[in-house]
Amino acid sequence: MSRFLSTKYHKLVPYTPGEQPKERKYIKLNTNESPFPPSRKAIDGAARAAESLELYSDPECKLLTKMIADTCGVSPEQVLCTNGSDEILNFAFMAFCDGAREAVFPDITYGFYSVFADLNGVPYRAIPLGEDFSINVEDYIGVNKTIFIANPNAPTGIALGVDEIERIVSSNPDSVVVIDEAYVDFGGESCIPLINKYDNLLVTQTFSKSRSMAGARLGFGVGSKQLIADLNMIKYSTNPYNVNSMTMAAGIGVLEDEEYTKSNCATVIENREYTVSKLRELGFEMTDSKANFIFAKHTDIDGESLYISLRQKGILVRHFNKARISQYNRITVGSREQMDALISAITEILEENKK
Amino acid sequence: MSRFLSTKYHKLVPYTPGEQPKERKYIKLNTNESPFPPSRKAIDGAARAAESLELYSDPECKLLTKMIADTCGVSPEQVLCTNGSDEILNFAFMAFCDGAREAVFPDITYGFYSVFADLNGVPYRAIPLGEDFSINVEDYIGVNKTIFIANPNAPTGIALGVDEIERIVSSNPDSVVVIDEAYVDFGGESCIPLINKYDNLLVTQTFSKSRSMAGARLGFGVGSKQLIADLNMIKYSTNPYNVNSMTMAAGIGVLEDEEYTKSNCATVIENREYTVSKLRELGFEMTDSKANFIFAKHTDIDGESLYISLRQKGILVRHFNKARISQYNRITVGSREQMDALISAITEILEENKK
Repeated sequence: MSRFLSTKYHKLVPYTPGEQPKERKYIKLNTNESPFPPSRKAIDGAARAAESLELYSDPECKLLTKMIADTCGVSPEQVLCTNGSDEILNFAFMAFCDGAREAVFPDITYGFYSVFADLNGVPYRAIPLGEDFSINVEDYIGVNKTIFIANPNAPTGIALGVDEIERIVSSNPDSVVVIDEAYVDFGGESCIPLINKYDNLLVTQTFSKSRSMAGARLGFGVGSKQLIADLNMIKYSTNPYNVNSMTMAAGIGVLEDEEYTKSNCATVIENREYTVSKLRELGFEMTDSKANFIFAKHTDIDGESLYISLRQKGILVRHFNKARISQYNRITVGSREQMDALISAITEILEENKK
Repeated sequence: MSRFLSTKYHKLVPYTPGEQPKERKYIKLNTNESPFPPSRKAIDGAARAAESLELYSDPECKLLTKMIADTCGVSPEQVLCTNGSDEILNFAFMAFCDGAREAVFPDITYGFYSVFADLNGVPYRAIPLGEDFSINVEDYIGVNKTIFIANPNAPTGIALGVDEIERIVSSNPDSVVVIDEAYVDFGGESCIPLINKYDNLLVTQTFSKSRSMAGARLGFGVGSKQLIADLNMIKYSTNPYNVNSMTMAAGIGVLEDEEYTKSNCATVIENREYTVSKLRELGFEMTDSKANFIFAKHTDIDGESLYISLRQKGILVRHFNKARISQYNRITVGSREQMDALISAITEILEENKK
C-alpha cells in the first residue's frame, strides 16, 4: 500500500480470480469456461471489427443491445451492455446500495459480492445457506434491503425456481433485487419474463459461459427502463466506451448463431450428468447443480488434498479455503474427454489415498 | 432517475462523449481518432485471439504489460493496463482522492475529471487557465492536493515541458500528481522518465490516438510500484479481467510495429501544421497545439454557428458550450484529404457568412 491510498480502502481485500497458470498445460476445470470455441460468426465478426479499430466503439452499443433485447423479449431501453457482468454487478452496488441501503446475499455465493460491497462502502449481511446449501426463500421475504442472488448459485450450482424468485421480488417492492444469472443456460430458469411486472428487478447475464466468450468480456443487465437509466448514468460517469468494438461484433455474431449455443449447452448438461453419475459411483457427495460445474466432496479425502493431487496430475479445479465449503471442490464441466481424464485421475487419487 | 438510485448520485451529471452519428457518413473530426487504420500486426493479433475467446483473458495482462514497460523503460510492476485510459483515471480518483484529499485540475481541461470527482464524492477545485489558455505552473506549486493535468491539455493542445511538470511534482511530495498524456505522441514530452525519481507521479497514456486503437479500449498507467499496487487493488476489486484478450493481442501487435506509429504521428503533425497555416490565412486564431487536434476561433463567426455549418456540410468537429471556450471549435487532425475538405468547407462558410 502506498502512503497515498485513500483510507477508505485500507482494509479492502480484492477478489481472487481462478488461477490462469502459464507454466504448464493443464486441463482447466477451474474457471467455468466453455470447452467449445466461440461461434464462427463471433470470431469472424470480431476479426472484421479489428480492421477499423481507429474509430471509437459505439458508446450506446446500439446494435448489440437491440439484439439482446430481442432475444430476451424486452425493449432496448431495458438492456445495458457492460465489460463483463462484473461491471454491471459493480454498477448495481454503486447505484442501488449505500451506507443507508444495505446489501444482503447468501454467505456462500459468488465471492465478488462482498468485495463490491466493501469497495463501495456498503454495509452487508450474509445470510447463511441451509445445511444442504439451499437458499431459504423465507430469509429474503420483506427484508427491505438490496438483495443479490446468483441463480443458479455459485459455487453450489443449486437453482431457485422463478416462482421462488418472484416471491422475493414481490415482497421487497422498495428495494432492488439483483438476480445474477451467469449460469442460467445450463438448466436454470431465467427471471427475465418478470422484468415487465416488477420495477425493482434487475437480471444480469454474461456471454462468458454458455456463449464461449469469457475472453471477450461481455455482460449485460435487464431491468425496468428506470433502473437501466440509472445504471447508464453510472456507466457514462465511469467509462462511456466500456465495450470495445470487437467484443460488440463477437456478441452480435454469437447471437446470430443461437443454435450453436443451445447445442453446446445441451452437451455440457449431458457431460455434467455423466460426470455426476461417475463421481457418485466413486463415493462423492454432490449438490444438485444446474450450472456448468459440479460441487463435490468425498468423505475419504480432504477437499484441499484432492485439489492439490489433481493439480499434480495436470487438472485444475477450484478449491475455496472457506468455512463450510473447504471439503468441496468446484469442478467445471468440460468436454467428455476432459471429464474422462478427470474421473481417471480421481480414481487413481482415491486408490493412492487408501494405501 | 428510479426511486432506487442512491442519493449520492442524485446530482451526478455524466460525461457526454463526442457524437457518433450513424444516419449519415460524416468526415469525423470530433473525437480525435486517428485517420489511419491500426497496424496490420494489431489487426492480425486480435483476429487470432478471437479464435480462443472461450478462455478468460489474462487478468495480469502479463505479456502486454511487459512490452509497455520495455517501451517506457520501466519495470512491469510499474505499469497497469486498463479498459481505456478513462478506467485508470477513474481508478486514480478512487484511490488517491476522497472527502479529505481534494482534487485540483484546470478549469478548462478533459471534461471527465470533474465527473470522476463527482462520481467518487471528491471535492475539487478547478484552477483557471491564463487568458491565453496556458497553465500557470505557480498555481500548482505546493497545493498539497491530488493534481490532474492533461499534458498536452485538452481541448487547447497546449503542452507544458517536463521541467515544468517536475516543479509541480517535486513541490507536492505528499500528494499524487497524475499527468494524463493521451496526446503526448504528437509533439509533447513524456514525463515517464521522472517515474523513478518521484513516488508521487502517475502518468497515464492511451492506445486510442497515436496507435489507432480507440475501438479496442486500451489505456495504461505508469508509476511507482506502490502506486501501481494500489491501482491494481482497485482493479481486482472492480473488474479483474478488465482488458479482453483481443485488445491485449492488438496492443502487443501495435507495439511490435512502432515504426508505423511513429510514421503516422509524423504525418498527423505535418497535417496539423499545414492546417494551422491554412486556417491562419483564413483569419483564425489558434492555440499552439501539440496534440492531434486544433483549437480555433474566428472573430467573424460564432463558434457554435461554425460547428453547425460544418455539420450541415458533412464535417463533424467538437464544440463545447462552455464559458471561455464557446467561441472555439476543437478540430481533429485527420488525413490531408480530410483537412483539405475542412478548409474548403470553412472557406465557403466564411464567404456565405459575409453576405
